Amino acid sequence: MARGASRPSSAVGHDAIAWAERQMPVLRRVAGRLADGERLAQQRVGVCLHVTAETGALVRALARGGADVDLVPSNPLSVHAEVAAALADEPRITVHLGTPTPVGHERALAAVAQLGPSLVIDDGADLARVLHSAGTADAVIGGTEGTTTGVLRLRSLAEQRSLEYPVLAVNDTPIRHLFDNRLGTGQSVLDGLIRTTNLLLAGSRVAVFGYGACGRGIALRAHGLGATTIVCEVDPVRALEARMDGHDVMPGLDAAARADVVITATGAIDVLGANHFAALRDGAILANAGHFDVEIDTAALAQAASDRRTIRPLVEEFDLGGRSIVLLAGGRVINLAAADGHPAGVMDLLFAGQAVAAAWLAEHGSTLAHRVHPVPDAIDADLARLALEAQGVRIDELTGPQRSYLTSWAPVVHESHTPPASADR
Amino acid sequence: MARGASRPSSAVGHDAIAWAERQMPVLRRVAGRLADGERLAQQRVGVCLHVTAETGALVRALARGGADVDLVPSNPLSVHAEVAAALADEPRITVHLGTPTPVGHERALAAVAQLGPSLVIDDGADLARVLHSAGTADAVIGGTEGTTTGVLRLRSLAEQRSLEYPVLAVNDTPIRHLFDNRLGTGQSVLDGLIRTTNLLLAGSRVAVFGYGACGRGIALRAHGLGATTIVCEVDPVRALEARMDGHDVMPGLDAAARADVVITATGAIDVLGANHFAALRDGAILANAGHFDVEIDTAALAQAASDRRTIRPLVEEFDLGGRSIVLLAGGRVINLAAADGHPAGVMDLLFAGQAVAAAWLAEHGSTLAHRVHPVPDAIDADLARLALEAQGVRIDELTGPQRSYLTSWAPVVHESHTPPASADR
Amino acid sequence: MARGASRPSSAVGHDAIAWAERQMPVLRRVAGRLADGERLAQQRVGVCLHVTAETGALVRALARGGADVDLVPSNPLSVHAEVAAALADEPRITVHLGTPTPVGHERALAAVAQLGPSLVIDDGADLARVLHSAGTADAVIGGTEGTTTGVLRLRSLAEQRSLEYPVLAVNDTPIRHLFDNRLGTGQSVLDGLIRTTNLLLAGSRVAVFGYGACGRGIALRAHGLGATTIVCEVDPVRALEARMDGHDVMPGLDAAARADVVITATGAIDVLGANHFAALRDGAILANAGHFDVEIDTAALAQAASDRRTIRPLVEEFDLGGRSIVLLAGGRVINLAAADGHPAGVMDLLFAGQAVAAAWLAEHGSTLAHRVHPVPDAIDADLARLALEAQGVRIDELTGPQRSYLTSWAPVVHESHTPPASADR
Amino acid sequence: MARGASRPSSAVGHDAIAWAERQMPVLRRVAGRLADGERLAQQRVGVCLHVTAETGALVRALARGGADVDLVPSNPLSVHAEVAAALADEPRITVHLGTPTPVGHERALAAVAQLGPSLVIDDGADLARVLHSAGTADAVIGGTEGTTTGVLRLRSLAEQRSLEYPVLAVNDTPIRHLFDNRLGTGQSVLDGLIRTTNLLLAGSRVAVFGYGACGRGIALRAHGLGATTIVCEVDPVRALEARMDGHDVMPGLDAAARADVVITATGAIDVLGANHFAALRDGAILANAGHFDVEIDTAALAQAASDRRTIRPLVEEFDLGGRSIVLLAGGRVINLAAADGHPAGVMDLLFAGQAVAAAWLAEHGSTLAHRVHPVPDAIDADLARLALEAQGVRIDELTGPQRSYLTSWAPVVHESHTPPASADR
Repeated sequence: MARGASRPSSAVGHDAIAWAERQMPVLRRVAGRLADGERLAQQRVGVCLHVTAETGALVRALARGGADVDLVPSNPLSVHAEVAAALADEPRITVHLGTPTPVGHERALAAVAQLGPSLVIDDGADLARVLHSAGTADAVIGGTEGTTTGVLRLRSLAEQRSLEYPVLAVNDTPIRHLFDNRLGTGQSVLDGLIRTTNLLLAGSRVAVFGYGACGRGIALRAHGLGATTIVCEVDPVRALEARMDGHDVMPGLDAAARADVVITATGAIDVLGANHFAALRDGAILANAGHFDVEIDTAALAQAASDRRTIRPLVEEFDLGGRSIVLLAGGRVINLAAADGHPAGVMDLLFAGQAVAAAWLAEHGSTLAHRVHPVPDAIDADLARLALEAQGVRIDELTGPQRSYLTSWAPVVHESHTPPASADR
Repeated sequence: MARGASRPSSAVGHDAIAWAERQMPVLRRVAGRLADGERLAQQRVGVCLHVTAETGALVRALARGGADVDLVPSNPLSVHAEVAAALADEPRITVHLGTPTPVGHERALAAVAQLGPSLVIDDGADLARVLHSAGTADAVIGGTEGTTTGVLRLRSLAEQRSLEYPVLAVNDTPIRHLFDNRLGTGQSVLDGLIRTTNLLLAGSRVAVFGYGACGRGIALRAHGLGATTIVCEVDPVRALEARMDGHDVMPGLDAAARADVVITATGAIDVLGANHFAALRDGAILANAGHFDVEIDTAALAQAASDRRTIRPLVEEFDLGGRSIVLLAGGRVINLAAADGHPAGVMDLLFAGQAVAAAWLAEHGSTLAHRVHPVPDAIDADLARLALEAQGVRIDELTGPQRSYLTSWAPVVHESHTPPASADR
Repeated sequence: MARGASRPSSAVGHDAIAWAERQMPVLRRVAGRLADGERLAQQRVGVCLHVTAETGALVRALARGGADVDLVPSNPLSVHAEVAAALADEPRITVHLGTPTPVGHERALAAVAQLGPSLVIDDGADLARVLHSAGTADAVIGGTEGTTTGVLRLRSLAEQRSLEYPVLAVNDTPIRHLFDNRLGTGQSVLDGLIRTTNLLLAGSRVAVFGYGACGRGIALRAHGLGATTIVCEVDPVRALEARMDGHDVMPGLDAAARADVVITATGAIDVLGANHFAALRDGAILANAGHFDVEIDTAALAQAASDRRTIRPLVEEFDLGGRSIVLLAGGRVINLAAADGHPAGVMDLLFAGQAVAAAWLAEHGSTLAHRVHPVPDAIDADLARLALEAQGVRIDELTGPQRSYLTSWAPVVHESHTPPASADR
Repeated sequence: MARGASRPSSAVGHDAIAWAERQMPVLRRVAGRLADGERLAQQRVGVCLHVTAETGALVRALARGGADVDLVPSNPLSVHAEVAAALADEPRITVHLGTPTPVGHERALAAVAQLGPSLVIDDGADLARVLHSAGTADAVIGGTEGTTTGVLRLRSLAEQRSLEYPVLAVNDTPIRHLFDNRLGTGQSVLDGLIRTTNLLLAGSRVAVFGYGACGRGIALRAHGLGATTIVCEVDPVRALEARMDGHDVMPGLDAAARADVVITATGAIDVLGANHFAALRDGAILANAGHFDVEIDTAALAQAASDRRTIRPLVEEFDLGGRSIVLLAGGRVINLAAADGHPAGVMDLLFAGQAVAAAWLAEHGSTLAHRVHPVPDAIDADLARLALEAQGVRIDELTGPQRSYLTSWAPVVHESHTPPASADR
């Protein structure tokens, strides 16, 4: 248990988890299905995640499926103590809270590893690391990993033939790109921008640096709120896509000279540097939507400024001699720093995906090679089906003849008549 | 030369090619670059394509690059005789027109094969077939194939270890999906719908069956013209994407009962059948945007109807007893049957892609295994760069430090502070 | 009857009218209602309109309501002879076709005037002119006028206290602005552009001169088809609206220097002149969507060009020395010259509006002052209700308490708590 | 001065006003112009507004123009004390803060009236009321009124021939409808919805009751954030517009049965009542965007519920037996209760409009009749011009010949050739 002057209230935690469950209709469906079949009976699931209400909902779903669950925080500093207290009340769930220090964190991980989990839900491959170094990975049928960094680490392990169980890379699926990056980031970055500045998007000019899934989402939502959009992108194929999607595309310095707002979402360093600061218009607003706070060269900005001051929470103004520039959230990722991170519907899908993947591994994990696998299409399809059901949306299935037709070698039944040049697509 | 009472005018053909070249700024750039470096010097290129003005522009670009070009129609019935006449005037270009019969077509292909091309631009693997059966594929450094059917055939050959040169599958690249299917088909299908019916899209309800690249483009443009959109899709991931893109998603019979217009773009057979016809509203309009005319079960429609009559060109009304249903273009692909097929900008990019791929094969083909290869990213990037340049769009490049950062193992420089659960993306 | 070698076929005309009626569900509803109540019994309606299938549908609707109808073409050169022949078969309808000369036209108008219509549906005030000059306006209860020019003429007459019956200005209602100008023109102008050029709108830059209802519709649809939009507008309020609607706004010369396509829709003269031609990019396409062909100074363009030639139907290229400019339809209104004018749904609403107005005048005309009146809100509401019904859309009505609340002096029941500055709107 | 334990800091207030001024580029331009010409020299302006930083910026602009300004809060409970303290430091500005009681408020108003303002900027006609009842309206050249309620009151006074000075109704101009209602409310209502619920708009279904300027803005932005939209509207013309704008339109009960979110923006009472609550889906979210909290019948909701509880700030859940319904902000106007009200750009334009109107009245007020006047087009045009300038947007002016052409009787120079039926628009 977390310690402190005031004991965290498990009642508050139960309320928070209940509200999260209300907002997570897809996870609720997965939970129901797991419970119906006791599909996780006799499994012990080691879960290493941020301890939040949504994680609480996930952990409860696993326990309802018959599993014993050991939860260890992926970051001991971000534990929601009330949620931890509430989960401690639940049958089959143990929360392993160490002291909030590196040593305490390692001990908590070791405790979970020692219990011999059969399934692992991991974040940054932390639990995998301890399982492998402690030699306690034998019982593991399979694991999921939800971060890019964790996947890189596990792949490296697999290349050395040292990975001792199969892992599903749940961070990299079509659904995750759509929900997490495009839809979730798109909405929440604009939310963070509006909360901090109260800017009217209509009539403003927003430049987005980077046209990956995040940048696409941001540009799409900026446009949806009435802004004129500019995209800056170094990859020519993505740049062309941005242009064909209706955005203006230009070099970063040109964009800096025109934009009212500049948002970085590239994954690279120093995307906005001294040259850009010199080009910006008076009053331009800068925000970062990339994971790390390295995209805006804040040191160079501070150096260029004769003065800086915080004018509202998370809003800092830099005086550049005649012009002033506004930096939001110190260049940290704006949707987390200044808004509520992912919308509820995104968390729902991501965590439901974890639960579906865990159940799939319980059934199929023992047949898989010990490396990092992409999420099978069938899992994504299953998850999508549940998400549609949660929205009350029904769809058709292929008929038998259609299925035969689509898998036959020569799909031509009646051919179109002589077409113009471009007929054969 | 094509024969006939009135000799085709090469002047008209030259004009048509010149206009096509005006509309093809990307191909013009490729042509300029090929000419500068004589990058196709000493190459003999066998080209099997529909003989149109755009093909004329492509063939001229190849010849300007120093190649000897042998053009054979991929379909002897669709030859634009004036273009063929004009190309016959050009140095280094030979047009091999057989009689417009199967036998004549084979002879023309054989003639091209006999000349021993070093590069092949193919359509449906017809030239490849003849080269392989005639044993004249030795000189071929590499080829491109632009159709799905052709790729299937060549892959099958490669699996039997019988493919004698490497092939680039130019029909399946990100740019091609974007331009050809989403943008080109999207615009031209709506164009065909409007031309045949003069329907006001605003306030109408359009159901699109299939949410692949074509269906996406059609739904996007129907929405852009003011329609309310419904998507029917059997793949749950695509269905979910359609829903998150803002379309209504429902089973086909429900859609049929609500839509003013139904457009099929699935690739499957009998997508609209007797059940759907029974559900349709009075006056509903049916069109097919899939490649083959098998998606609407026109036989079942005819059977269900007590009467049918053509009320405008390409517009046929079926009397279903109290309700009447309108079928466009007899269920053939609407953008080709009732509009001008691909917009000029799409043809430009596709043919420029063929020329870039041919030049790349001239340089690298001999190093490749004899199988079907995806188009290397570098070619797509090069093509995108030319397309941006043609639009007057400039972009940045990564700096050295950015490149190092992005390729380093551990991209963390300064890490974000404790984030909520959803931080690690 | 029109004369000629081959007698026009009334069967073809009946088919054309039947098809028009299929496409005009709102007019069908009005017709049904007129017929039910014989609401035009004992009326004689003089109708001066272009003789087309849609006009045929309107005239039949009036006759079904019990009226005797005298139709005279508003332009003797644009008569669809088959439609005229078909209408001649109908009970209660007389088509007055003079010889297609000014004298013949006047005689036909005079014949209609002589018959003493009680209601007038007019186009350009032509019938009104003859009724007034012939002194045969006594029987007229009221009329409608559908053109701006006609309204100006009738207002001028009313100011001289010479107008002898009340007129409803049906060309100027919220619904007409929406349907006719924004929706109808928006779609059909883009249709004309695509038909003539086969241009891919996505990735192109379209400049629209004028941001009235037409310009708005054009910019909206260009954007909906994927183009980036620029608006040029001299009225600052409209220019600001365009900017807040997400379009780029700039002076015309700047727009000319950037646009791939320039479309005029201002109502003014010489909107594009020598300065703009000098600024245009190579290959730029010019089209006019304004009613008269005065917006593009084609004389100045011809003078600036060293050469000009027609490269496709309605597409003319001007050589400006190193650059060439493309003019569509000779600067005439593009949606009529190169497409099918108004979409069917627009014609439906406009002609249904004429019929509703005529019926309303039959009932209320005698109580109105002899001047030009705006269309009463009740007629527009009635028409909107029918249009919704035709689309299968139902709406609610205000409850009694809501009606009382909205008309009471002090609408405050429970007041909001202390709001920020902007609370009282 | 406001009283209290801790004296409000005028430094904080100066900072707040300075930040507001940064965000109000249009007002800054107006201020500069007023200062240049000392256009308010010898004027005494009575200002009755909420005392906020934005009001501070307005008042300072007036003083810079040479006026003596007397500011009285329109609501004594909503005074930002630091702003009041800062304004007290400024030359030519007096803040009249009474005790925060009805009596104190009346005394403060009376004090301002007693000073004999020559110009009045009013909010709810409060200052006008006191001026008229105290007989101190003689010196007033003119006033502005920014609320609908105030305009009703002043019109009523004018009808009794008792209004003693001309008033401009600044609440009712095209720009105000655009900025305040459509753009400002549109963005901020969605902002309030996201802040309270963290809902992912993409894939959700939002029903908007009312399609006035506010409802339009809300529906537009909901759509722009990826939601599917339903509009419920009792006015058939507006309902038809909503349909043609691409929204689904249906009766309220049908909408309630489908929507994930229902937002009222009608101005009427009991828009959502017991019937709707019975129809809502489990988990549906209700919010009001109308000015008064009468649109959702919260009493009926409470009565229908077996239980209710606050689950997050401003989020209350009602248990309806098997279903639960979420009410935001107790049915109070969501963008003020749960977000920051108008975006800064909206406040800028509204307050700049007040300043421009005041300056115009200083010059022209004495020539106006003593009634409520619409804002002259010239003021709106002027304001739009300043707003464009603030965004760096330039526009053209009509040429002399264009101006002549547009004002001439018969605008036909060269007429279009025989058009189809629909030519004369």
